[in-house]
Amino acid sequence: MALVPLPTLLIEPIVRQALLEDLGRAGDITTDAIAPPDCVARTLMVARQEGVVAGLDLAALAFRLVDPAIRFKLIIADGATVTRGATIAAIEGPARNILSTERVALNFLSRLSGIASATARLSAAVAHTKARIVCTRKTTPLLRAIEKYAVRAGGGANHRFGLDDAALIKDNHIAIAGGVAEAIRRVRASVGHLVKIEVEVDTLAQLEEALGVGVEAVLLDNMSIGELRQGVVMIDGRAISEASGRVTLETAPAIAETGVDLISVGWLTHSAPILDIGLDYDHP
Amino acid sequence: MALVPLPTLLIEPIVRQALLEDLGRAGDITTDAIAPPDCVARTLMVARQEGVVAGLDLAALAFRLVDPAIRFKLIIADGATVTRGATIAAIEGPARNILSTERVALNFLSRLSGIASATARLSAAVAHTKARIVCTRKTTPLLRAIEKYAVRAGGGANHRFGLDDAALIKDNHIAIAGGVAEAIRRVRASVGHLVKIEVEVDTLAQLEEALGVGVEAVLLDNMSIGELRQGVVMIDGRAISEASGRVTLETAPAIAETGVDLISVGWLTHSAPILDIGLDYDHP
Amino acid sequence: MALVPLPTLLIEPIVRQALLEDLGRAGDITTDAIAPPDCVARTLMVARQEGVVAGLDLAALAFRLVDPAIRFKLIIADGATVTRGATIAAIEGPARNILSTERVALNFLSRLSGIASATARLSAAVAHTKARIVCTRKTTPLLRAIEKYAVRAGGGANHRFGLDDAALIKDNHIAIAGGVAEAIRRVRASVGHLVKIEVEVDTLAQLEEALGVGVEAVLLDNMSIGELRQGVVMIDGRAISEASGRVTLETAPAIAETGVDLISVGWLTHSAPILDIGLDYDHP
Amino acid sequence: MALVPLPTLLIEPIVRQALLEDLGRAGDITTDAIAPPDCVARTLMVARQEGVVAGLDLAALAFRLVDPAIRFKLIIADGATVTRGATIAAIEGPARNILSTERVALNFLSRLSGIASATARLSAAVAHTKARIVCTRKTTPLLRAIEKYAVRAGGGANHRFGLDDAALIKDNHIAIAGGVAEAIRRVRASVGHLVKIEVEVDTLAQLEEALGVGVEAVLLDNMSIGELRQGVVMIDGRAISEASGRVTLETAPAIAETGVDLISVGWLTHSAPILDIGLDYDHP
Amino acid sequence: MALVPLPTLLIEPIVRQALLEDLGRAGDITTDAIAPPDCVARTLMVARQEGVVAGLDLAALAFRLVDPAIRFKLIIADGATVTRGATIAAIEGPARNILSTERVALNFLSRLSGIASATARLSAAVAHTKARIVCTRKTTPLLRAIEKYAVRAGGGANHRFGLDDAALIKDNHIAIAGGVAEAIRRVRASVGHLVKIEVEVDTLAQLEEALGVGVEAVLLDNMSIGELRQGVVMIDGRAISEASGRVTLETAPAIAETGVDLISVGWLTHSAPILDIGLDYDHP
Amino acid sequence: MALVPLPTLLIEPIVRQALLEDLGRAGDITTDAIAPPDCVARTLMVARQEGVVAGLDLAALAFRLVDPAIRFKLIIADGATVTRGATIAAIEGPARNILSTERVALNFLSRLSGIASATARLSAAVAHTKARIVCTRKTTPLLRAIEKYAVRAGGGANHRFGLDDAALIKDNHIAIAGGVAEAIRRVRASVGHLVKIEVEVDTLAQLEEALGVGVEAVLLDNMSIGELRQGVVMIDGRAISEASGRVTLETAPAIAETGVDLISVGWLTHSAPILDIGLDYDHP
Repeated sequence: MALVPLPTLLIEPIVRQALLEDLGRAGDITTDAIAPPDCVARTLMVARQEGVVAGLDLAALAFRLVDPAIRFKLIIADGATVTRGATIAAIEGPARNILSTERVALNFLSRLSGIASATARLSAAVAHTKARIVCTRKTTPLLRAIEKYAVRAGGGANHRFGLDDAALIKDNHIAIAGGVAEAIRRVRASVGHLVKIEVEVDTLAQLEEALGVGVEAVLLDNMSIGELRQGVVMIDGRAISEASGRVTLETAPAIAETGVDLISVGWLTHSAPILDIGLDYDHP
Repeated sequence: MALVPLPTLLIEPIVRQALLEDLGRAGDITTDAIAPPDCVARTLMVARQEGVVAGLDLAALAFRLVDPAIRFKLIIADGATVTRGATIAAIEGPARNILSTERVALNFLSRLSGIASATARLSAAVAHTKARIVCTRKTTPLLRAIEKYAVRAGGGANHRFGLDDAALIKDNHIAIAGGVAEAIRRVRASVGHLVKIEVEVDTLAQLEEALGVGVEAVLLDNMSIGELRQGVVMIDGRAISEASGRVTLETAPAIAETGVDLISVGWLTHSAPILDIGLDYDHP
Repeated sequence: MALVPLPTLLIEPIVRQALLEDLGRAGDITTDAIAPPDCVARTLMVARQEGVVAGLDLAALAFRLVDPAIRFKLIIADGATVTRGATIAAIEGPARNILSTERVALNFLSRLSGIASATARLSAAVAHTKARIVCTRKTTPLLRAIEKYAVRAGGGANHRFGLDDAALIKDNHIAIAGGVAEAIRRVRASVGHLVKIEVEVDTLAQLEEALGVGVEAVLLDNMSIGELRQGVVMIDGRAISEASGRVTLETAPAIAETGVDLISVGWLTHSAPILDIGLDYDHP
Repeated sequence: MALVPLPTLLIEPIVRQALLEDLGRAGDITTDAIAPPDCVARTLMVARQEGVVAGLDLAALAFRLVDPAIRFKLIIADGATVTRGATIAAIEGPARNILSTERVALNFLSRLSGIASATARLSAAVAHTKARIVCTRKTTPLLRAIEKYAVRAGGGANHRFGLDDAALIKDNHIAIAGGVAEAIRRVRASVGHLVKIEVEVDTLAQLEEALGVGVEAVLLDNMSIGELRQGVVMIDGRAISEASGRVTLETAPAIAETGVDLISVGWLTHSAPILDIGLDYDHP
Repeated sequence: MALVPLPTLLIEPIVRQALLEDLGRAGDITTDAIAPPDCVARTLMVARQEGVVAGLDLAALAFRLVDPAIRFKLIIADGATVTRGATIAAIEGPARNILSTERVALNFLSRLSGIASATARLSAAVAHTKARIVCTRKTTPLLRAIEKYAVRAGGGANHRFGLDDAALIKDNHIAIAGGVAEAIRRVRASVGHLVKIEVEVDTLAQLEEALGVGVEAVLLDNMSIGELRQGVVMIDGRAISEASGRVTLETAPAIAETGVDLISVGWLTHSAPILDIGLDYDHP
Repeated sequence: MALVPLPTLLIEPIVRQALLEDLGRAGDITTDAIAPPDCVARTLMVARQEGVVAGLDLAALAFRLVDPAIRFKLIIADGATVTRGATIAAIEGPARNILSTERVALNFLSRLSGIASATARLSAAVAHTKARIVCTRKTTPLLRAIEKYAVRAGGGANHRFGLDDAALIKDNHIAIAGGVAEAIRRVRASVGHLVKIEVEVDTLAQLEEALGVGVEAVLLDNMSIGELRQGVVMIDGRAISEASGRVTLETAPAIAETGVDLISVGWLTHSAPILDIGLDYDHP
């Protein structure tokens, strides 16, 4: 399935606000003092380490919003794997405006590429199974939509986008409802027909209760490999199975081999380091 | 110097937007279906790993914006070091609203605490010297003000906040100006009397040129320990000295021992993992 | 299932903007000229026709945002049926601010109550069946969240909230994909595990194709009663069935009696007349 | 008098917000999965019933904001009467973006056309008199400016736009002031020289009092045909006369024949059903 | 007629944005470093010159938005005349927050009081006539509503608030229409019944043409005293008369004595100097 | 040093909001009624008095935002001195949109040019010395960035832009800290390495204390010419010297001749009258 770009309408307010955050009340006082208005810059956007790129639309938009005269020529596209030293894009235009925009463009691109790269590494580790890597709601405040996109760019899939687009019953919900089955019943009676329900279970007993009442997906939280394997057998295709908890590059393969459909990972969006990307200017 | 909280006016728009991002168009459909309106929750905010806490004002504000009836009682304050298992705050109020807000509050708190903790670890590594850890403009888009605050909470100091509040002359500026001295002259002639100028130099020859024309601060970029030491001697107190490039917990002590005033580190804000913080609910 | 109020954070920006739209640049110049600052008003909010009330939180918030000193006392709650002449709320406070806010508060309340009332009437017409009335995306621009809420207040259920929270495959999608089955396959391969897929079919042949590949819900569009009945038999519980097209108070019972799960109706949100609600002032 | 389009600056924020409301956090997941990026759509915007069109600028802007590459060719203009089946516009461009925008564009267009059509029908019913149909402040929250425009497109005229651009003295104002004359006097003493004053009267005695002190316009509220006729005679051109209350297509002619200048109708904006308008795609 | 305060809803966004403009990304770094959190300040707001005060609600709101714990006690009210040295308000609360807010509060208050004071001086100069001083649309961008309020506080009246709430036909309109009468006719045929029309005339011939077709108000622009006097005679109460052009404290009395109803003055809002107001801190 | 234009991203929200403030809810009802859609206007922007122009980018943007078809041709640039009658720009396009935008464009331009002109006059008065004219934080709320730009256009320099980009220790800070030296020490210990510190001193004793502890700049407030001269000698190049208080065109030369580096003037931004600029239409 091809990666679909985010609507410009969705990313423009974010990019605009990020630029204003950096420009402050007086703009780029260093560059304004040094670069004459007619000075032209040519620069290549280059990967300084291997990984998967995501966020080029945001970077391109940053340059375009500052100065429509800047030409931003993509050489590779979001979702592509780059080796260290690979050229990602070529940028040319008024030096003043390229220099002023560079940091914001790279802040978006390197962060999203970091998420895409982590997702891709983890996906590769489970590629011999049917398991798919998914993200969580542990995203950076204000950046959820673009971080979820970065997960897709890295070959992962998305969990729900917010509290409103799917139901996820967690331990505290179960405690309040007085049981797994009752919790599922209450949600089923309340949500619309296009809302899926997933329930988080800590034990196989809870899983059995959930399957008894019927649910679209079950989140097997912090279970051992043995429990996961048994859980998958119990589910037997009646629900989507998702494993979570202590997922690392090392533990992922064994988790995936239990037969679960999905492995969800919070650190893809809350703790993945950036992918180092920089600009190489061509100074004569 | 005591940590000063950020003005509520500054953080409120961010917290409000983060809550709306999560609530979407229908709010917390799971919790709304399960928790009766009069159900009360009591929960403790607990550190799941050791580190330095930052962002409690944002977490508290998230709960207050959703429901002023939620009581958020601080047990420790921003900037404090917590051990694993330490209680950070006690929260009590309508279960519905506490459950709906939990994720956003933790997303802020764990991210900012991650930055504060990384800053504190690095600061500790150079505590035997006069060097101070500082952040950069490589921050998360839209969150710069609160991430800079988190660096302060961790015992670090802030570099400039944007392109407009201080001048930082980099390699491309020097290339355009035709030299370090000319670049400094152009900026000096342009900026106001309350704007400091820092110049990034790659070689000791550039440093000498900078000191010749006079500048408030020099950024010694990617220099060897030997060069740094020699640079500090050359500067001899005439400018603030800042080292950057390849700074890790391992390399920081040696860098600091060269006598530089500051060590700037991009990954504090672009790649520090979160500090794991969670809520423990008290279910009877 | 009890009606859950919308989060204040969601409705506040809408109510605030509606008040500013009415206050303009100079506020209520008539009332300001006539009512002395210390003049107190007592008024009852009264239904001028029978129906179901929805939107009291928005009305109350309008008064509170203009003047926190206004007391707004609910007598009945959202979702309740009122007879003509029934008192809905009692309002007391500075006459100036009550008079200035009245129109905006009533504009929200009468519109949302109109939607709730139409939903309730239609729901009553099918109450002898298992069919549930649902709304569509044909909502008033900028008011979708509160109009969907009004449908819930009237006893109806919600279809998807936007283009992003569920997949709905329509005729043009099928034409582009080259068939019902291929369209479903493409969407299944693309969306996350918590996204349900519904497909709109115009013929029983298309329905068969959809059931063959499997789908969560089918929208039987503009079918005859006979086709609907046959469709329900074919589906046989393997998918949720939804009927749409030419639904009126008169046609709804027969449609519902075909055994469909849902009946979706655009005019609930795009053409329902308001419920007439007014304020009766108590002038001594 | 020719219909003047609304300034783009006024409608752009509304259209942009409506698009974001529908796109949510992930955009059109159905269309993105099905339509390849290079798929082109050709579609005609067609009236499904007879009426007067209004809102084409908003529809066109919706498509342009989503994708400037979409060509939107007007065939008829706002204010024109269309028969059932008439083509309103031709749209061509990337299928993905046309399908994603369709609903929002139609939601604006069908709602405003509904208002224009109702206004036109009512205007036709009184065309044999000098009476003009006018709207009220009972508009949809956040959409007042565009709904008032739709009334103009239907051949009606606008009452005041808010609380601040004209004074309208109502029953409660009169009660507070202690009389019609005193109320008019207070307002006259307070407002600027370019603000007109209208007073709502329930009886001919009140009318006489108003005419005695002088006022630009009188609103004869809920009067019988006989009272209206007498009121017009009493006014004798000294003020603009406006009738309101229980105005329908059936009652309007008799009201108009009393000689009143204006007939104001709340349901034009609060309860007019939409005009059914759809898109016919040209699938090869 | 008593001065009516502006709705808080109208001024809050302006005050909030002004505070954010000053706080920037890090807040008041000077005060934060110096004043301990528990340091309390007591200060009096004092007029440093004679004039009329306006804007106290904005000043009070600035303090309240920054810190609800600050007590702001009014001693005199908007519209009052103060002598040099007079105390306007007493402020007490956390020193940190009072010091941080002081400048923004005074920037609003001194600017609006400057406008009110200029209006009051000019009004006094014509107090022996029936002429009233009015402002124009030459206001500070983004501050029109509060500057119009300041004119009212100074005893003046307001002209129209924007392009939409009244019609003002100027020289270029007349040139396009081909004459005064035709211009008035076009506008009369176009605007709603609650919109007044004023026409600007440069000659008595134009005035005659305007009176012939009838118009609510005439603006006698840049006429000599003799022409003004003759114009007033010609108008003879059939329209409101307004004089404009070269109005100063010196010329105003003679202009007013011609019998015009209004004298409009652009410099009240575009060039009036501030009224000097400061804070006197009580340091033990 | 050449004047650098403000980033379009910074000025666009301000210009857009100013246009909306004037257009209100219905746009320019006068022009819409009179000017046919195809009527073309040609107009010259002309200085009605001598001065320095600033704000042409905002004026041009106003026309462009309303109608991209309007051609705005600059004849002179920001920062240029114009004589009375000089042509500043030529504007051509749809008459309707030029007339609707004119006032907002001129409101920006005349206000900013007024500030630039006042700055230029004051700068000329001290041109025989090394002193530079600087502005303060006494700016118009919401317009600080563009007013600071206008000061630069007039040949002046900028003081700090807000509370956060430089530290300015004032009398109340000194009182709270208990002395000049302690205040400086507290700030030095708190702020980042790129933040300059300035201290305001009222006496030469305070100046001596400040110089003893070391500070980047001193503000000599309300000192006599003799004290200023002595202060400059005491400073002896160890800090930047700034004089403030009672600065007028008459007093400025003597203040400048004392040898101070800067003279700061609040009234440049809070009380400078506008520069009269108008549009001359070419009517055939």
